[in-house]
Amino acid sequence: TTEGKVIKCKAAIAWEAGKPLSVEEIEVSPPKDHEVRVKIVATGVCRTDEHAINPSFKEGVFPVILGHEGAGIVESIGQGVSKFKPGDKVIPLYMPQCGHCKFCLNPKTNLCEKISKIKTPISDQEVMSDGTSRFTCKGKPIYHFMGTSTFSEYTVVSESSLAKIDAAAPLDKVCLIGCGFSTGYGAAINTAQVEPGSTCAVFGLGGVGLSAVMGCKAAGASKIFGIDINKDKFPLAKKLGATDCLNPQDIRKPVQEIIAEMTNGGVDFAIECIGNPDVMKAAFESTTVGWGTCVIVGVAVGEQSIPFSPMQLIMGRKIKATFFGGWKSVKSVPKLVSDYMAKKFDLDALVSHTLPLDKINDAFDLMNAGKSNRTILVF
Amino acid sequence: TTEGKVIKCKAAIAWEAGKPLSVEEIEVSPPKDHEVRVKIVATGVCRTDEHAINPSFKEGVFPVILGHEGAGIVESIGQGVSKFKPGDKVIPLYMPQCGHCKFCLNPKTNLCEKISKIKTPISDQEVMSDGTSRFTCKGKPIYHFMGTSTFSEYTVVSESSLAKIDAAAPLDKVCLIGCGFSTGYGAAINTAQVEPGSTCAVFGLGGVGLSAVMGCKAAGASKIFGIDINKDKFPLAKKLGATDCLNPQDIRKPVQEIIAEMTNGGVDFAIECIGNPDVMKAAFESTTVGWGTCVIVGVAVGEQSIPFSPMQLIMGRKIKATFFGGWKSVKSVPKLVSDYMAKKFDLDALVSHTLPLDKINDAFDLMNAGKSNRTILVF
Repeated sequence: TTEGKVIKCKAAIAWEAGKPLSVEEIEVSPPKDHEVRVKIVATGVCRTDEHAINPSFKEGVFPVILGHEGAGIVESIGQGVSKFKPGDKVIPLYMPQCGHCKFCLNPKTNLCEKISKIKTPISDQEVMSDGTSRFTCKGKPIYHFMGTSTFSEYTVVSESSLAKIDAAAPLDKVCLIGCGFSTGYGAAINTAQVEPGSTCAVFGLGGVGLSAVMGCKAAGASKIFGIDINKDKFPLAKKLGATDCLNPQDIRKPVQEIIAEMTNGGVDFAIECIGNPDVMKAAFESTTVGWGTCVIVGVAVGEQSIPFSPMQLIMGRKIKATFFGGWKSVKSVPKLVSDYMAKKFDLDALVSHTLPLDKINDAFDLMNAGKSNRTILVF
Repeated sequence: TTEGKVIKCKAAIAWEAGKPLSVEEIEVSPPKDHEVRVKIVATGVCRTDEHAINPSFKEGVFPVILGHEGAGIVESIGQGVSKFKPGDKVIPLYMPQCGHCKFCLNPKTNLCEKISKIKTPISDQEVMSDGTSRFTCKGKPIYHFMGTSTFSEYTVVSESSLAKIDAAAPLDKVCLIGCGFSTGYGAAINTAQVEPGSTCAVFGLGGVGLSAVMGCKAAGASKIFGIDINKDKFPLAKKLGATDCLNPQDIRKPVQEIIAEMTNGGVDFAIECIGNPDVMKAAFESTTVGWGTCVIVGVAVGEQSIPFSPMQLIMGRKIKATFFGGWKSVKSVPKLVSDYMAKKFDLDALVSHTLPLDKINDAFDLMNAGKSNRTILVF
């Protein structure tokens, strides 16, 4: 047994911004009090991982083990952990749910006190709660990322940042419930609260956007626009529920004007899944005056602001954002896994590529080239 | 009787941007189909009137008769008008309610199809629905303003833009229900939906801000911050419900940081009643992460954007705005007048000055100098 011992294993390390990741042997310390060590079996690669090594994102720390969309099996538990035992199938959660803070007790939010002080989702949880890391490589401590660091064969997470899931769940699919799927699907269901018969527009048809399309469809939307500059995304978007796909580069007018014409004034709900302030503006303006709701899902790099006028709000549009799709994480993730097992939604369609950890830079390349929906790394 | 005849009367005309108004004799045509001619008895002077002649607001049209916060008595009615008769006490409404468009039929908005196409509240309704004006002065047509033009002894409005009120109502007080009071009070009650026991911050303590304070108090807020750089506003704000008044110029830190410290992380609701994008940002940042709601009431001049980062939305804050406080106008204004008559709120406290129409430029000067809450012009 490895319990109580340091584990040597492979992990992908980001040594500095703007450089490829490097797969190396690392050491993973045993879990301390209220921590759990998890053997990661599969992990998705998400745009947010790319943001963290993007030189224009100033708040990244290095060296770091990225990854926040994983699934695995509990290897060992620290003192005081009662909800998990070795062998449990689990999904690490970058959005913790301690269960007893003022946020966890408030039904209006899925935020938790543990991360309520952070400025952005990707600028914190880089050490464990005692202020130290559980990872070393070549004698140097390596930072955690979003409290999850799933680009490693073994990771250590807080017990508040872990969901126990169905023992029969296929980890190479349900890992997507750790971020991309839940974020997009929840943006439609929980944050936008898409209504039956309503009209929707989803900007960006990557893994998150496609999940938002699924959410709009599950909520009963009658019309779902899928917007992307990559028309290769359209067939799958249509399969998952989009009724109309638009490529802004193929039309002469701003896409929000076309959408307004096709919907007698604009959609009820728009969901931005890219992270580009100009697209956020287009999404906002694609909604109807009176009651249009724009949900921001994409994480914008840096301190850019959305270039819309407050006067556009006066006409009755609203803007809000979602973090992990509004799901209370510990409580909701097991239920989402069960819903997947009951075939209530289709995760498999999102997986375009499956690669070994050694090929992690290929996964980033595929994502940056717009050639993958979601690449899953299997260990 | 003047029915069917042109009426000669006095009105304050704005001949061009950036110049004082000029009180002159004008001619007011009889009402056409579905229009009503109203003898204005009293009108408030609002910051929005000032915006319309502010040279930095590019969309103003001239010459124009401003004013949109009036009350009066029906003088005569056009063909097809069935809901009004001469002698009725009325309040003109810059937010129409036709009662049968998709907006009027939707409980989520108080917008009406008749003004759903406009870009800002103060850039339209400058002619009647047939495309012409009912005003002339020295042989020239004079534009209407916001469909109301209450800075005139007589005005003509659409029957969809008029509310019949209690015959016993004092017009020199209830005129404030035509704009300032309803906007601020409704921003708290309808748009923010302030909850009992919640914490609130109102930025700007002019007539609208003081009305927002009243709305927060009526909704049962436990703590209400009143923020203004003019400390002369504080005694009345406290009388009307503010529990803590702050002058950002008297404190070393940004006011939103002080509010966060005094509320364990920020208020539940912030209401911006100035129209300054930097103050909008401060109001937004004064709300708690997780569920804070920022309501924009103030009308920003021009195309400025609010300089906040989308990442601040990701942490669960929301931003929306209010137009006429979210009230469905024709239906709600008579009820607000009745509530005032039943002493459910205090309009009288908002009236700091009462002046004759001839002194209208003094009213603007008092407002611009921060020396008035609301000045009422009586005819």
